[in-house]
Amino acid sequence: MLSVEDALSQMLAKITALPTVQVSLSEAQGLLLATDVIAQEEMPPFANSAMDGFALRSSDVQIQDGQSSPLRIIGEVPAGSVSTKTIQPGTTMRIMTGAPIPPGADTVLQVELTRLIDDQHVTLLRESAPGNNIRPAGEDMQRGQLILSQGTEIGPWEIGILAALGWAKVPVIRRARVAILGTGDELIEIDQPLQPGKIRNSNSYLLEAAVRRAGAIPFRIGVALDTKESLRAKLLEAARYDLILTSGGVSVGEFDLVKQMMEEQGEINFWRINMRPGKPVAFGHIGQVPLLGLPGNPVSTAVTFELFGGPVIRKLQGHTRLYKPQVEVILQDSFTETASRRHFVRAHVDWQDGQLVAQVTGAQGSHILTSLRNANALLVIPENSGALPAGSRVRALMLTWPEVASVLAHG
Amino acid sequence: MLSVEDALSQMLAKITALPTVQVSLSEAQGLLLATDVIAQEEMPPFANSAMDGFALRSSDVQIQDGQSSPLRIIGEVPAGSVSTKTIQPGTTMRIMTGAPIPPGADTVLQVELTRLIDDQHVTLLRESAPGNNIRPAGEDMQRGQLILSQGTEIGPWEIGILAALGWAKVPVIRRARVAILGTGDELIEIDQPLQPGKIRNSNSYLLEAAVRRAGAIPFRIGVALDTKESLRAKLLEAARYDLILTSGGVSVGEFDLVKQMMEEQGEINFWRINMRPGKPVAFGHIGQVPLLGLPGNPVSTAVTFELFGGPVIRKLQGHTRLYKPQVEVILQDSFTETASRRHFVRAHVDWQDGQLVAQVTGAQGSHILTSLRNANALLVIPENSGALPAGSRVRALMLTWPEVASVLAHG
Repeated sequence: MLSVEDALSQMLAKITALPTVQVSLSEAQGLLLATDVIAQEEMPPFANSAMDGFALRSSDVQIQDGQSSPLRIIGEVPAGSVSTKTIQPGTTMRIMTGAPIPPGADTVLQVELTRLIDDQHVTLLRESAPGNNIRPAGEDMQRGQLILSQGTEIGPWEIGILAALGWAKVPVIRRARVAILGTGDELIEIDQPLQPGKIRNSNSYLLEAAVRRAGAIPFRIGVALDTKESLRAKLLEAARYDLILTSGGVSVGEFDLVKQMMEEQGEINFWRINMRPGKPVAFGHIGQVPLLGLPGNPVSTAVTFELFGGPVIRKLQGHTRLYKPQVEVILQDSFTETASRRHFVRAHVDWQDGQLVAQVTGAQGSHILTSLRNANALLVIPENSGALPAGSRVRALMLTWPEVASVLAHG
Repeated sequence: MLSVEDALSQMLAKITALPTVQVSLSEAQGLLLATDVIAQEEMPPFANSAMDGFALRSSDVQIQDGQSSPLRIIGEVPAGSVSTKTIQPGTTMRIMTGAPIPPGADTVLQVELTRLIDDQHVTLLRESAPGNNIRPAGEDMQRGQLILSQGTEIGPWEIGILAALGWAKVPVIRRARVAILGTGDELIEIDQPLQPGKIRNSNSYLLEAAVRRAGAIPFRIGVALDTKESLRAKLLEAARYDLILTSGGVSVGEFDLVKQMMEEQGEINFWRINMRPGKPVAFGHIGQVPLLGLPGNPVSTAVTFELFGGPVIRKLQGHTRLYKPQVEVILQDSFTETASRRHFVRAHVDWQDGQLVAQVTGAQGSHILTSLRNANALLVIPENSGALPAGSRVRALMLTWPEVASVLAHG
């Protein structure tokens, strides 16, 4: 049997990043920048005030008995406008945060350190050194400077930077479009009443949400029945996407049809992986499109998607960091389900007194859907591990990190 | 000046959860369940096979010289069908994983432990106890059992559970629709060339992405100019959403217009918060709709949104855990920018030899956009802290958690 690591590395060796496309800035969120971003302008574009206050000449201010002689207010510079007046000795202008420094001024004193005498005159309560409260042009970015490197992940804050530089469109590595295909005559739609021998196609919905959480675009393309015609048609349809996820049809004795059809349409390997749940997994290509065949039990589908599907999607989208982190956590209760294969145990991991504590989510059979409830981590229990007492330290693959109930939680 | 905690608790006291709506299962992702989910059926709905193999009577199997006497194969039970035949003594049926156990059978032996003699006969290599490889009906869920509680967050795995139970539509607390409004005559669209005194409206794009990352639906509704008419019209438009985010127009000396108009349209408090960046923040209501007024510097906008906007959105969407966790991290380099106010320092936090290490993202002025690059955390530096040497332990508010480059990283 293959190890999880060997299976992953064999899969990932066959995955290459999707092509670059131009998208609107809003659509770039979560994607990787496909070019270096060089500043074509200075930022700030003009020297501007860091405070609401008065722009003036520093040499005008001498404090005697706690205040300066009055300066005459010759106007104001709101943000967004440019002063046509020049600050002459003995004069000043009101200025707003972000507004351009008027000609002649070399300093800004904040409004809190001034006192109005009348509408046209102000005295200053402090001296103000040259450059005080002035943000020079280009202090943040110089023309020609590399601001964001190719391969940077575009989060909300990078979007802010790109917007400031005028990048309304951005070249990115394309978001993956993922076809999700159920297989098997036993599947009925989720809004249908149960019939003898049938179960609802829950996997397609689970995978749709998991693909979305992984940052790609899911497409549920329905169910392939256990006939050559149905399977062939669905695989052809699926091959129009960037990645095909199937669930079911990959275990040892299942209808050879799935295997036969997948091989007719491309090149597929059926693997047995040394893990629990989810031993059987298929991987290959339909035409040029990678196919990841997940087992049909919902729990196995869920776990194998996180282990294999997530990294495959990240590599398609250009990432080099493909994996969720594994951290050490403390077992809250004893765990006695032993397994000869490596066991990925569903658990809820939460902060407790500054430590991460794991609570296993009930019985761990691959048909026990309730073990998926509120789980945000997979405990990684090594092969042939014995029972683990409460308080044991184990590794947890963190799928999501819990928010906390107090703003100052776990110092 | 208000502390961050006091400001937050005053804001949150005025926020109530949005109403419940019915959405399709796919749209429920990330939302909170607004009802208890009780199983109306048993899961599994029928006793079924855990393996691909042979369904038989356990009393038929006696192993002699490593195998049993042959059993006659009277048919097969593929998944999705129901056997009309009964297993009589000396007979067996092929059965697929998940398929219903045929009448008369009380055990399943996996195909790997059998040997075919011919098309119609098989011998068994092991005994198979009653119940072996059979998943009883109701083992996972009993009719009438509480499966998911009201208030459960609906992730991919909960979607799988809901789909299995036939919940094609789900009552949830509604996703917040958030209006994002820029303010100020200095703003031009992001695809426009710079003009003297103008800057691009990067904040609206930054906030749009940040709102989306926080799980709500952003709507950029444009820019309010510094006229009564423009501001009044935009505030009226914004009041059709569930939350209004403004940027700019909230600092001490800025045009009183914003303050005046906000108060004309509702009840707004302008606050000075003991933090850097982003001291001035406004909070109140336009009609019944909460308004959070963020400062105009992009860095201040970004940081105050994470501190205040994120928790407000989570509370609107029904959560009780509102905050990102704060964890202890190690400073990679010394940090010498001291501040009298509490300082939220942008940093990139990453795993290093099993520890979280923080690298500050450059100069920390509130107009230094480049300090937002690649930042995934805010270091929380206490008021009046001195310079911190490299290796210091500080708290980090984790905004996102980094993926890792190796599948076994930092054990």
